[in-house]
Amino acid sequence: MSLIDDKFARLATDNAPGQEVRAAARIDKNTLRGESIPGIPVDFSHGDVNATAFEPTPGAFEEFAEGVKRGGDQAYTEYRGKAEIRDGVAEKLADFTGRAISSADELIITPGTQGALFLAVAASVTAGNKVAIVRPDYFANRKLVEFMGGEVVPVRLDYLGNTGRAGLDLNELEGAFLNGARTLLFSNPNNPTGVVYSKDEIQAIAELANRYGVTVIVDQLYSRLLYSGQLFSHLRATTINPANVVTIMGPSKTESLSGYRLGVAFGSAQLIERMEKLQAIVSLRAPGYCQVVLRTWFAEGEGWMADRIRQHQLIRDDLISVLGTCSGISARPSEAGSYVFPRFPALTVSLHEFIRILRIQGGVIATPGTEFSPHSSNSIRFNFSQNHRAAVDAMRRVVQLTERYRA
Amino acid sequence: MSLIDDKFARLATDNAPGQEVRAAARIDKNTLRGESIPGIPVDFSHGDVNATAFEPTPGAFEEFAEGVKRGGDQAYTEYRGKAEIRDGVAEKLADFTGRAISSADELIITPGTQGALFLAVAASVTAGNKVAIVRPDYFANRKLVEFMGGEVVPVRLDYLGNTGRAGLDLNELEGAFLNGARTLLFSNPNNPTGVVYSKDEIQAIAELANRYGVTVIVDQLYSRLLYSGQLFSHLRATTINPANVVTIMGPSKTESLSGYRLGVAFGSAQLIERMEKLQAIVSLRAPGYCQVVLRTWFAEGEGWMADRIRQHQLIRDDLISVLGTCSGISARPSEAGSYVFPRFPALTVSLHEFIRILRIQGGVIATPGTEFSPHSSNSIRFNFSQNHRAAVDAMRRVVQLTERYRA
Repeated sequence: MSLIDDKFARLATDNAPGQEVRAAARIDKNTLRGESIPGIPVDFSHGDVNATAFEPTPGAFEEFAEGVKRGGDQAYTEYRGKAEIRDGVAEKLADFTGRAISSADELIITPGTQGALFLAVAASVTAGNKVAIVRPDYFANRKLVEFMGGEVVPVRLDYLGNTGRAGLDLNELEGAFLNGARTLLFSNPNNPTGVVYSKDEIQAIAELANRYGVTVIVDQLYSRLLYSGQLFSHLRATTINPANVVTIMGPSKTESLSGYRLGVAFGSAQLIERMEKLQAIVSLRAPGYCQVVLRTWFAEGEGWMADRIRQHQLIRDDLISVLGTCSGISARPSEAGSYVFPRFPALTVSLHEFIRILRIQGGVIATPGTEFSPHSSNSIRFNFSQNHRAAVDAMRRVVQLTERYRA
Repeated sequence: MSLIDDKFARLATDNAPGQEVRAAARIDKNTLRGESIPGIPVDFSHGDVNATAFEPTPGAFEEFAEGVKRGGDQAYTEYRGKAEIRDGVAEKLADFTGRAISSADELIITPGTQGALFLAVAASVTAGNKVAIVRPDYFANRKLVEFMGGEVVPVRLDYLGNTGRAGLDLNELEGAFLNGARTLLFSNPNNPTGVVYSKDEIQAIAELANRYGVTVIVDQLYSRLLYSGQLFSHLRATTINPANVVTIMGPSKTESLSGYRLGVAFGSAQLIERMEKLQAIVSLRAPGYCQVVLRTWFAEGEGWMADRIRQHQLIRDDLISVLGTCSGISARPSEAGSYVFPRFPALTVSLHEFIRILRIQGGVIATPGTEFSPHSSNSIRFNFSQNHRAAVDAMRRVVQLTERYRA
């Protein structure tokens, strides 16, 4: 296998969320037990942005339409995004995260948060660099590091064994830094587990990063969707050296604006400048007209976000109840975001076979835990930003099928 | 300087089109001669998509609005783009280029043609690989190769010394292949010169590529905007090994749809598959709602494209006339696309100073030739997809300032 063949073999997307349509859900007929269970199909691989579930922020389309009317001035923006839009977003994100942001130098608008993650990693990591990656964590993190020729140094998150903290193994984290990792990439709230890092954990990360001169890229995509009783600590508002931290957010999840593909990264001016240089050759800019939709962000109107959070929390509670009826399933109630990541009991089929069985017999699409960690081969990620009743019924089918294929 | 500092130093965007707003147009006052020349400012760094110049394709916004209404099904597409949209685009591009395209395996929708170029280069080139790059050619080509750790092997385009052919030095091209280059990246029509490769040149490229097993990435962004009397040869329709060619196009230029950021790449199934894997970590997908706008592509309605070409040709003719009034300016009339790339006589100021003088005293933004080739330090690129009268007046100011600063 040539070098480049090998590089792309490690970028496999066969089990990535959203790509299920490309893989025929085939399975040996002798493996299947019993009949399919009827019900409304649910695609838990991503959120449902239709009217029956969670629609985009009110006014988003109208802002877009205004942008199109504005013409060339909006179509062709600076690569890092239109200044006036960056001004507004920087002010809101400074309020939200508790630390000032220079809209001129410390913020870039990207095509989705995926774009921001790619640019941040490529701006920090080059061939041979070691990068600390949490396990489990967002499936692209590992691939980004590998694509840049970097080396992943894993750090364990013991999310099931802890309450009141995410469960990051701080000794392993320091070990990774001692071992030469000079970049840390992690999501908070964690994707896929829905846990939130405690204030102490965030402060400890800041102190370790300062001690070892580590650049930290923190993906806070779900930090607005925080359930009752939860506190969120922004890494950038700690004592961390601000030149060494980039925060990533975007309106594609809680706000259901994924169809516009918008993300932002903010923090270290040096890294943001590199990211813009790279964006110039990767995609030029986030779509000019779509950028305008960011005006609706953090401006959703009285009570809108509180209501959206409440609705998600109700779904979470019902799904946790349903999962709780099945002995051997362990699920930590999500503290933020719209993922639940239950661990399943031993089954007579492999995880990937069970994923296909869920699709064929249960009308359920979900993402295997192996996308997030090689050690999560008995876990499945469900995005519960769905129609409430359909999601609960679908999770009942998951429990039925777990019983049917229990070892 | 560390490795990564060095890597980003080579990605400078200070003189890149669209970034002028970030660079203050400062110049030593003693350098300036005479007064500013009044007139409507023209930004020749990119096309003008406003109503006074060249508006987006009719119906584009309406298609977008339909996409938003369609909801989640349109927001979350396969990474390579929604199947039904790929089906339509593949059929039209097969007709246009004269060779079939499998919409399932041989086409990907990307965030702009810049996204397609990045993915195509990253799918073909890895550290240490040699890549043949034409000089002059699109400014990002060199940067893409360098970012991947590849080595640029330049091939000369003698665009001023030829008629009836683009002027590619085929001996140098074969030399590059003999020297180990296994990828060729070029634009046809050429950006910045507006020349079209002849049938013989394209056939020679195909034969050399086959002989040396070279992968060819051809950027045909402007291949629809072909002036009267011109013939266009599609590389993919020659005898070239189809597994070794990727063609890139998009609706952002002639069709003025840049604000939606859409591009497509089509050809080699192996390379398209790699590109999709990479897109998964670079930007996930082209914006879901924007993808719908591709339905208007190659479906602009009777006479629309012919009229648009005619209008551009009239501007081209007038600009060439204006440039012809200035002795020492050489300009080859563009055969396609909306660029003119005149060579200027010796001036008392450097090219980059003259670019700033054009902005300060002439109200003209244009792109220095050095973005396209280190040997083009006496040339300037003008995108004349502008309001006709404003463009002609602005070019008269360019001529006046050339006279004023003539050595």
